[in-house]
Amino acid sequence: MLTRTASQSLTEQLAAHFAERIGDRLLAAGTRLPSVRQCAEQHGVSPATVVAAYDRLLAQGLVEARRNRGFFVREQRVAPLSGAAAQPAGAVRPPVDAAALMRGMFHSSEQPQPGIGVFPPDWLASDIVAAAVRRATVGQGLKALSLQYGEPAGDPALRRALSHKLAGLNVPAAPEQIVTTVGATHALDIVSRTLLRAGDHVMVEEPGWAIEFARLQALGAVILPVPRGADGPDLEVMARYCEAHAPKLFVSVSVLHNPTGHCLSPGSAHRVLTLANAHGFHIVEDDTYSHLAPDHATRLCALDGLARTIYVSGFAKILAPGWRVGYLAAPAALVERFLDTKLLATLTTPALLEQAMAWCIAQGQLRRHAQRVRTRLDQARARSVKLARAAGCRFVSEPAGLFGWVDTGVDTEALSLRMLDEGYLLAPGALFHAGRKPGTLMRINFATTQAQAFWKVFERVRAAM
Amino acid sequence: MLTRTASQSLTEQLAAHFAERIGDRLLAAGTRLPSVRQCAEQHGVSPATVVAAYDRLLAQGLVEARRNRGFFVREQRVAPLSGAAAQPAGAVRPPVDAAALMRGMFHSSEQPQPGIGVFPPDWLASDIVAAAVRRATVGQGLKALSLQYGEPAGDPALRRALSHKLAGLNVPAAPEQIVTTVGATHALDIVSRTLLRAGDHVMVEEPGWAIEFARLQALGAVILPVPRGADGPDLEVMARYCEAHAPKLFVSVSVLHNPTGHCLSPGSAHRVLTLANAHGFHIVEDDTYSHLAPDHATRLCALDGLARTIYVSGFAKILAPGWRVGYLAAPAALVERFLDTKLLATLTTPALLEQAMAWCIAQGQLRRHAQRVRTRLDQARARSVKLARAAGCRFVSEPAGLFGWVDTGVDTEALSLRMLDEGYLLAPGALFHAGRKPGTLMRINFATTQAQAFWKVFERVRAAM
Repeated sequence: MLTRTASQSLTEQLAAHFAERIGDRLLAAGTRLPSVRQCAEQHGVSPATVVAAYDRLLAQGLVEARRNRGFFVREQRVAPLSGAAAQPAGAVRPPVDAAALMRGMFHSSEQPQPGIGVFPPDWLASDIVAAAVRRATVGQGLKALSLQYGEPAGDPALRRALSHKLAGLNVPAAPEQIVTTVGATHALDIVSRTLLRAGDHVMVEEPGWAIEFARLQALGAVILPVPRGADGPDLEVMARYCEAHAPKLFVSVSVLHNPTGHCLSPGSAHRVLTLANAHGFHIVEDDTYSHLAPDHATRLCALDGLARTIYVSGFAKILAPGWRVGYLAAPAALVERFLDTKLLATLTTPALLEQAMAWCIAQGQLRRHAQRVRTRLDQARARSVKLARAAGCRFVSEPAGLFGWVDTGVDTEALSLRMLDEGYLLAPGALFHAGRKPGTLMRINFATTQAQAFWKVFERVRAAM
Repeated sequence: MLTRTASQSLTEQLAAHFAERIGDRLLAAGTRLPSVRQCAEQHGVSPATVVAAYDRLLAQGLVEARRNRGFFVREQRVAPLSGAAAQPAGAVRPPVDAAALMRGMFHSSEQPQPGIGVFPPDWLASDIVAAAVRRATVGQGLKALSLQYGEPAGDPALRRALSHKLAGLNVPAAPEQIVTTVGATHALDIVSRTLLRAGDHVMVEEPGWAIEFARLQALGAVILPVPRGADGPDLEVMARYCEAHAPKLFVSVSVLHNPTGHCLSPGSAHRVLTLANAHGFHIVEDDTYSHLAPDHATRLCALDGLARTIYVSGFAKILAPGWRVGYLAAPAALVERFLDTKLLATLTTPALLEQAMAWCIAQGQLRRHAQRVRTRLDQARARSVKLARAAGCRFVSEPAGLFGWVDTGVDTEALSLRMLDEGYLLAPGALFHAGRKPGTLMRINFATTQAQAFWKVFERVRAAM
């Protein structure tokens, strides 16, 4: 609630409130501001004050008015030097500014938030982090790992450890088929940049992760969203896309899909691969949540044996996000091309942290750590599910893994805006739709929604909508 | 010299010799094999043996015959999944496979080579590397730097240290204008990806670095080579390009230009900036060799005050290539866009190594280390220049910095092939031309050409051509 002060009118305060959030990019470009009536109620001011505040934001160029639809946050960038790439016809427009939303998520790191996509740091804490760095830097190791660029494909010890680890998932990858990267993000970027050209069609799962959509759009690719069900992607939709657009690539999270938590069924995996073989597209399988799932979960790369599939994963969700260690495993015929792209993008990657990670894997330390995290997550999930249901949320998919995909019954973009004022960052469903379709769904993080306090605020805010 | 053995014929041995080099990509696609006569002489076999060996390589698909021109190494890749990007009309074709050549350079790391672009590891060795890592990982530091992603723009301590460091070069950059990257390579990649679209024109200096050309081509940009003279780029050529093509970007190494060692004059800098303002292009200034030059060297970013210039640098050439710490400093209006690109490409970068580097800078350790390296380099350069001249090389530009740009009097692509057989990796002039123009020039590394033994082999091989 705003209070009139000597130095600042209510209008000024309200305008400053929104300007600050826009500046911090917590309100991304394209976000609709609350209606005048809603905003007035929420902040305990008159509608005239809200109108005056919105006018001020309009004059500052921070928002724009759209006839009959309200006020929207404007793109804050300066006019681009180069003309933006022409969007190919038929393309779905992804979130206006997914990278900005991502950055908003990084902003509020003071307390773990319901909307974030990672474990809170204390969940990942383990003595193995310090032990691994000690191992990698002892004696002459530090100099060897610092004073040279390192191998283009990545630290050999890590690639050997990964090859062994992948064998445990039934994914046959020789160390020579593995390329280390700056997190799984970099691996996905390398694959996309190498296999796609502007105008190429690419199939993605929907719901899916906004950053992936944004990355593909930045490359000028045309996004074809495939509905993701409990067993896997909608095969009929995929088949129609294949006939109509000859897509080059399918990006898939088979195991503990984000945000639904679904795991691919063996039958669905087989049919997806049959389609890929018939139509000649590649599949990049993003196994980011690998450590939270049983080893026997169905993976496309295991069925296919890395023939036309590319495996991508990392360690940010289980041990050390800050180390930025990720990797890809690819068909022998593609590895060289991915390696070239890595060289042009970053030359090599930091071998010191890669060797530390190799030690964690090879010693079995990572596996034991992951087991502890899974046990803790199972308990957290049970508690969060109970609290969420009590607060009136309905789980759209069977709770599994790190995320819950819930129906709140109200518009979650509006809900997110209001919860931001209460200090909580949510992940509204629109973030997971290539077309940023608004709706009543949202993703919750089971590790950060165990507090009754959050759900009380949630209930109060939702009831006021 | 090959010797007949019981198990392998001379033909088999010779074919295997070339196949191995092609497999290791030490012979890049597009490289011409020696003529039959040359090869026979060089390996002490009959011309018929060479013809049989080349036929075998042909049958294996490793080389191709071009009528009246000889045998050339074939592109080893499988047919790309997606059609290669159509090369815009008027584009210069850059080195066939610059990334492959770069990887060839990484292969031969057993002894420092005349053709490499970095100092040998022992030149960079310093106690500060270990001290810095200790500092960054002591107490709770390691957990803080490992268990979270870190700030999107990069470690705040490093950005503060860099801001201060840049002020010493008269480049005014607030910490908020700085984005850390995975080496200077990643910074250049981020700038190019953000500012250029397929079909855009970009000016580069010629001679210049092949990897930069390859990166720009991979983006589908049209490369406009600008001759680089002792004072700076050829302004008349630039002006004509501006009129004809409205280029979006100019990529420049102002200080200790690679490979010539030239430094930009203040007058030339002023005229380049005037042209940039008149025609509205941006300039990315690659200051990779910054630590080897005096602070008062002329930099475009200093004159321009980061108005339409972007500063890029790193630490691979002076302290710890393996840490992969680089950065860019940009106009406030562009920083957000670069940050978005960084997020899509790698999310964040490893804060642990960034904080270690921050300590090296802030404590003055790096400055003192760089001073020692410069003194040692001055001595090495004096010795190498003498040896090179005695071996019949003529310096095309005044020797300065890490590299010498010399005229050998013979075709350096052919020379490089023969020297490879002697265990030496050279950097032929064609690597530095956007059109891979063959010629008699080559780049030498002053730190790795101090041994008389190398120059003796060089003289012998050259004399035999």
